Amino acid sequence: MEKLLYTGKAKQMWQTADPEVLRVVYMDQATALNGKEKDHFAGKGKAANNISTLVFQYLIRHGIKTHFIKKLADNEELVKKCQMVPLEFVTRNVIAGHFASRYGLEEGGSLTTPVEETFFKSDQLDDPFINESASIALGIATHQELEQMWGVCREVNTLLTHLFAQAGMRLVDFKLEFGHLSDGTIVLADEFSPDNCRLWDLKTNAHLDKDVYRRDLADLTTTYDEVLTRLQAVVTEED
Amino acid sequence: MEKLLYTGKAKQMWQTADPEVLRVVYMDQATALNGKEKDHFAGKGKAANNISTLVFQYLIRHGIKTHFIKKLADNEELVKKCQMVPLEFVTRNVIAGHFASRYGLEEGGSLTTPVEETFFKSDQLDDPFINESASIALGIATHQELEQMWGVCREVNTLLTHLFAQAGMRLVDFKLEFGHLSDGTIVLADEFSPDNCRLWDLKTNAHLDKDVYRRDLADLTTTYDEVLTRLQAVVTEED
Repeated sequence: MEKLLYTGKAKQMWQTADPEVLRVVYMDQATALNGKEKDHFAGKGKAANNISTLVFQYLIRHGIKTHFIKKLADNEELVKKCQMVPLEFVTRNVIAGHFASRYGLEEGGSLTTPVEETFFKSDQLDDPFINESASIALGIATHQELEQMWGVCREVNTLLTHLFAQAGMRLVDFKLEFGHLSDGTIVLADEFSPDNCRLWDLKTNAHLDKDVYRRDLADLTTTYDEVLTRLQAVVTEED
Repeated sequence: MEKLLYTGKAKQMWQTADPEVLRVVYMDQATALNGKEKDHFAGKGKAANNISTLVFQYLIRHGIKTHFIKKLADNEELVKKCQMVPLEFVTRNVIAGHFASRYGLEEGGSLTTPVEETFFKSDQLDDPFINESASIALGIATHQELEQMWGVCREVNTLLTHLFAQAGMRLVDFKLEFGHLSDGTIVLADEFSPDNCRLWDLKTNAHLDKDVYRRDLADLTTTYDEVLTRLQAVVTEED
C-alpha cells in the first residue's frame, strides 16, 4: 500500500514498492505569497509535469545529474528519493519580482552578470534570504557542496537560456533545488516549470509563468499550455 | 563658513577649511527600527565619540587604514573625507538580533565560523540584505574590493574580540563601513561604538550596547559610559 509522504504547494510525494523511488503527483493547484493564496486550475498539473519532463530529459541528455526517472502519467512521474538540501538556488538573468522591489530597481533592467541567491527553505520563516557564509556557519551546506550546486545552476542557466530562446522565450530567473541520493551524490531535484521560473516572450515581454496568477494577468493553465506547446516545437519527449 | 553636509541617525558631518577633511559631531541621540524611533540621551554623543576614538586609535596602531584623524572635542572628531561604499559589513560571532529571528534561532547560540553579511545602505529600502553576487552585478563593488574590505573586517574582528575580552566584554557582532579617499584608497570609516556592535558582559551576558535602548533594558548613556570606563582600563587615548 503506497503511503503519502508529503504534500507541497503544487505536488504530492508518494512512497513506491522501491524504497529508493518516489512517485510525484502534480496537482491542479497554484499558490502565491508562499502559500497564503491558493487556487484550483484544471489541467495545470498536467502542463507543469509535461514541461518539467521535457526540461529534465533535456538536461539529462546534456550531462546534468538529476533525480528524474520517467513520466508515469499526464500528472505523475517517478523520481529517485533524495534527502533534500534545505536551500532554494535562484539565478537571475534579468531584474524582476522581489529582486526589483528589494533594491528599488525597475523590472526588466539588465544585469552585468547573473545574480545568484539562496533562500533557506522554511514555510514558518517565509523562506528567508541566506548567504553562503551563514549557510556554512549554520551547517546547512559546506563550501564545496555550495560550489558544486552553483556549478550545476550555471550549466543549467546556459542550457536552458538557449533552449527557451529557441522556443521564443527569455529565461528571466529560475529556482533550483538539490538533494542527496542514498549514496550521498548531489543531484538536481524538484521540478522545472513556470511555477519556479520567469519566462517572458522574447518579442513582447509578455509573462508566460506563474506571475500571470500572482498578478492576475491571464489564465494560468492556458499560459502553461502555451509554454508546453512552444517547448514541444523545439524538443521531443523520450519514452 | 562651515557647511553642514549630512545629518545621520547619530552624527552630523561638517565641511572644514580643508576640502579633504570633515568634522564629525556625535549627537546626544539614538534611533531604533532604522530611524522610526528616536530619543534624546544627554552625554551619549560624548561616550560614543570617546569609545570610537579609543577603538580607531587601537586599530590604527595595529595597521588598519582608517578615515580617523583625531578627536577635537568631547563629541567631535576630524576625519578624512570619503566617498562611502553603500554597504554595511556585518560580522557575527554569536547568534543575536535579526540573525536569530530571521532563521528561527536562539539568541546566544554559537556559530562554527563567524557569519559575514552585507546590507545595502538605503533608508528608503530599509537597508536590505544583499549578497556578493548582487553587489557585483549591480555595480556596487567589485569582487576584489569586497575581498579587501572583508579582509579588514576579519582583522578588526580578531583585534577587537581580543581588546573587548580584556575589558570583560564579548564582541557578539558589529557593523563596519568603508569609504574611498580621493586617491581611491579604501579605508575603514564611520564609527565603532555600542551603536553599531553588540557587547555582552563576559560573565553575566548583560547587554552593553544599543540593545538596552531597543529593548528598554537600561539607561543608554550609563551603559555607554560603562563600556568607555572598561575600555579606558585596558587602552589609552593618544593626543
